[in-house]
Amino acid sequence: MAEITKFNLEESEMPRQWYNLAADLPNPPQPPLGPDGKPITPDALAPVFPMNIIEQEVSTQRWIDIPEEILEILSLWRPAPLYRARRLEKELGTPARIYYKHEGVSPAGSHKPNTAIAQAWYNKKFGIKRLTTETGAGQWGSALAFACSLIGLECKVFMVRISFDQKPFRKLMMATWGANCVASPSPETQSGRDILEKTPDTPGSLGIAISEAIEAAVGDSTGGTRYSLGSVLNHVMLHQTIIGLEAKKQLEKAGEKQPDFVIGCTGGGSNFAGLSFPFVCDKIHGADISIIPVEPESCPKMTRGPFCYDHGDTACMTPLLAMYTLGHGFVPPPIHAGGLRYHGMAPLVSQAAVEGLIEPRAYPQLKCYEAAVTWARTEGFIPAPETSHAIACAIDEANNAKEEGKERVILLNWSGHGLMDLMGYDAYFQGKLSDHALPQGDLDKSLESIKDLPKPEVRKSGKW
Amino acid sequence: MAEITKFNLEESEMPRQWYNLAADLPNPPQPPLGPDGKPITPDALAPVFPMNIIEQEVSTQRWIDIPEEILEILSLWRPAPLYRARRLEKELGTPARIYYKHEGVSPAGSHKPNTAIAQAWYNKKFGIKRLTTETGAGQWGSALAFACSLIGLECKVFMVRISFDQKPFRKLMMATWGANCVASPSPETQSGRDILEKTPDTPGSLGIAISEAIEAAVGDSTGGTRYSLGSVLNHVMLHQTIIGLEAKKQLEKAGEKQPDFVIGCTGGGSNFAGLSFPFVCDKIHGADISIIPVEPESCPKMTRGPFCYDHGDTACMTPLLAMYTLGHGFVPPPIHAGGLRYHGMAPLVSQAAVEGLIEPRAYPQLKCYEAAVTWARTEGFIPAPETSHAIACAIDEANNAKEEGKERVILLNWSGHGLMDLMGYDAYFQGKLSDHALPQGDLDKSLESIKDLPKPEVRKSGKW
Repeated sequence: MAEITKFNLEESEMPRQWYNLAADLPNPPQPPLGPDGKPITPDALAPVFPMNIIEQEVSTQRWIDIPEEILEILSLWRPAPLYRARRLEKELGTPARIYYKHEGVSPAGSHKPNTAIAQAWYNKKFGIKRLTTETGAGQWGSALAFACSLIGLECKVFMVRISFDQKPFRKLMMATWGANCVASPSPETQSGRDILEKTPDTPGSLGIAISEAIEAAVGDSTGGTRYSLGSVLNHVMLHQTIIGLEAKKQLEKAGEKQPDFVIGCTGGGSNFAGLSFPFVCDKIHGADISIIPVEPESCPKMTRGPFCYDHGDTACMTPLLAMYTLGHGFVPPPIHAGGLRYHGMAPLVSQAAVEGLIEPRAYPQLKCYEAAVTWARTEGFIPAPETSHAIACAIDEANNAKEEGKERVILLNWSGHGLMDLMGYDAYFQGKLSDHALPQGDLDKSLESIKDLPKPEVRKSGKW
Repeated sequence: MAEITKFNLEESEMPRQWYNLAADLPNPPQPPLGPDGKPITPDALAPVFPMNIIEQEVSTQRWIDIPEEILEILSLWRPAPLYRARRLEKELGTPARIYYKHEGVSPAGSHKPNTAIAQAWYNKKFGIKRLTTETGAGQWGSALAFACSLIGLECKVFMVRISFDQKPFRKLMMATWGANCVASPSPETQSGRDILEKTPDTPGSLGIAISEAIEAAVGDSTGGTRYSLGSVLNHVMLHQTIIGLEAKKQLEKAGEKQPDFVIGCTGGGSNFAGLSFPFVCDKIHGADISIIPVEPESCPKMTRGPFCYDHGDTACMTPLLAMYTLGHGFVPPPIHAGGLRYHGMAPLVSQAAVEGLIEPRAYPQLKCYEAAVTWARTEGFIPAPETSHAIACAIDEANNAKEEGKERVILLNWSGHGLMDLMGYDAYFQGKLSDHALPQGDLDKSLESIKDLPKPEVRKSGKW
């Protein structure tokens, strides 16, 4: 074996600090606004999150220590391997060298536990007994269930009813880890009861589930419950940067100075941010890297949405965040990459895009499945439908490199495996899927609802 | 992180040879017999297997080189990590140190690809274009589909109809890797058609599927098709020994001289053999190790079956093998650990048991699920129902160590993850499972059918 394909790190080589992009962005993201249109204070978030998490949310410190106990749990599956996709390179006949960070090795099968473990640990340390959250298809809910199980917290998950009924497997993962998962809307909260009364047959939505999870947290009179979010917020991006920090060390072991392309799929932004932020830092300091977030054409917030203030949830319970958005009332088409069906983009990722540090692209569903199948049949691991967006983009760039006859180093985040998503592959093979491109009229209609919200100042430093 | 929990090896530290226990067993297994009751010649197997595999099947050479190209593919997920189960130890309050070899990291999620890759490679090298096999719940079929995809062979899988209909997920994995999977009995073979004519509604059986797969291989008039088996045979055990050879190096890195217990679950015997045979070798040379194959109480060939000659399949198409068996007509109860529902035990494992080198135990289903849930909630990774048998036994021995106040080193094979088997967990949580202990009358009835087959000589060297 002259050629190494898997670049491991020892546990002793794990990053000891998270990287906070807010410290280096030429213009940091603008503050969340309250219902009065004024920046909210940390205290306003205290009923929802523990103060140690809120401190991270508002921090502009560049490096933040990872507590030893968090590292110990992360070391169950971290450092995650960095692979060189040699078989795919050969199949494509490309001179590009394609590397992927395999985040599917976690017990929950995706990158989500990187922040689930951290959030559960900080909540536990703050004296919290119970976490609530929402989940769509269940990737985040299962990650938090896993984290709470190992750290010793109760976990309550409100799962969008249509997924609860149609996709039972991640629900069963949650049960195995001891979490209490209910279909949302549920009779357990006021907002759930109100909706059930009006529309007993509703399939539910992520927006409704967020409302229920927040209500269940702030409504616990003992004060022992908080809410946990799996993407979008600054502290979530922070916790995920361990991905990119590991990847940098591993690329060095592979003999690469620097990637030419860094690619990740984007729903709320966390796996993309996790891989890319350390490289965004390099770019701010002059490195020549194309950093590409890939979103579905059916939910194209960064490629077709405006940068403005909007709520994180459909029911407008969250503060206003400055971000790329399709409008909080936007209902994405039923693509199989459920984790990418979110109307907004993390403020830190959004600001990086405003600054021109990252270059968003949108891909259609069928092309992504085609790329996923090529991947499975060459590299072996079956990717999640979300991950397939990063793969499709990487294959495009590898083909470009071939056409141009140039060696390129491509790094992508292989954010999770597709073993819980095989029904989507089945539908693809049976020719039942379509691309679900978004008509401009639908987008305009959705954006109408946010036209009167405050506008962020578009602060932009220039070209990179 | 003072305490390391994951012991990796570099790709450069991968074993370069497989270990063949046949070279060291005091009495090697007795030869397979043909229909005439006489030992069969290698040539008789040539229509079924390629000659390079047959050579391995009959070899008594101690070390057999692993071809570089096989190592390169195995390095996609190998060396597999060895973990210390510190959270489980803490939960049990045991002084024992529990190590597990994580074979769930392969793309197919189990140890099966270790031999699937090797078999596909040898067939390809021999000029074969297409492999056929049978599969029950699909663990083996998906492993071979994966292997054929990467190596470039067509793959045809006959899947027991009841699993084909009720457990679609591993079938979808096979489709993703490009294999052709059909429900068995199928109209594609004579044996399938015969059965469909008589019993159109049959749920199928592994025995029927084996018959179809062998027929589809030997019936290809171009000579380009062979059959592949995922367990039982000597060459399969051989390919799996990479597990134990890695584990030995990793235990050394963990500072352990030798395990006190080596534990694996047993269906046909391959994952148990893979981990244990290098330690069986140590035991032959004087080491004091308890080596325990764990079978389900509902399919107790080694704890309640006789050691005798029997067919490997229900339809009596295979040669007679000297092994522990419940009779080739035995129909195991519907436990969820589908991979352990096989009537016989690999001849090499059987002979090791005859010699007293290994000490079989049987566990009931509910105790194994209880152990699996304890595992998931402490160690994080959700085990396959098969693997839970090894876990239940390891927990028992850890509790014994606690009672006796003794430090013990326990090594178990974590043969695969349970993400495709969550319906079994669901049934367990809902109280729908039972233990399915096997009535003696049923066993006697099954054994009646093999009473007239030739008897092997019980060659036994003595105590270890």
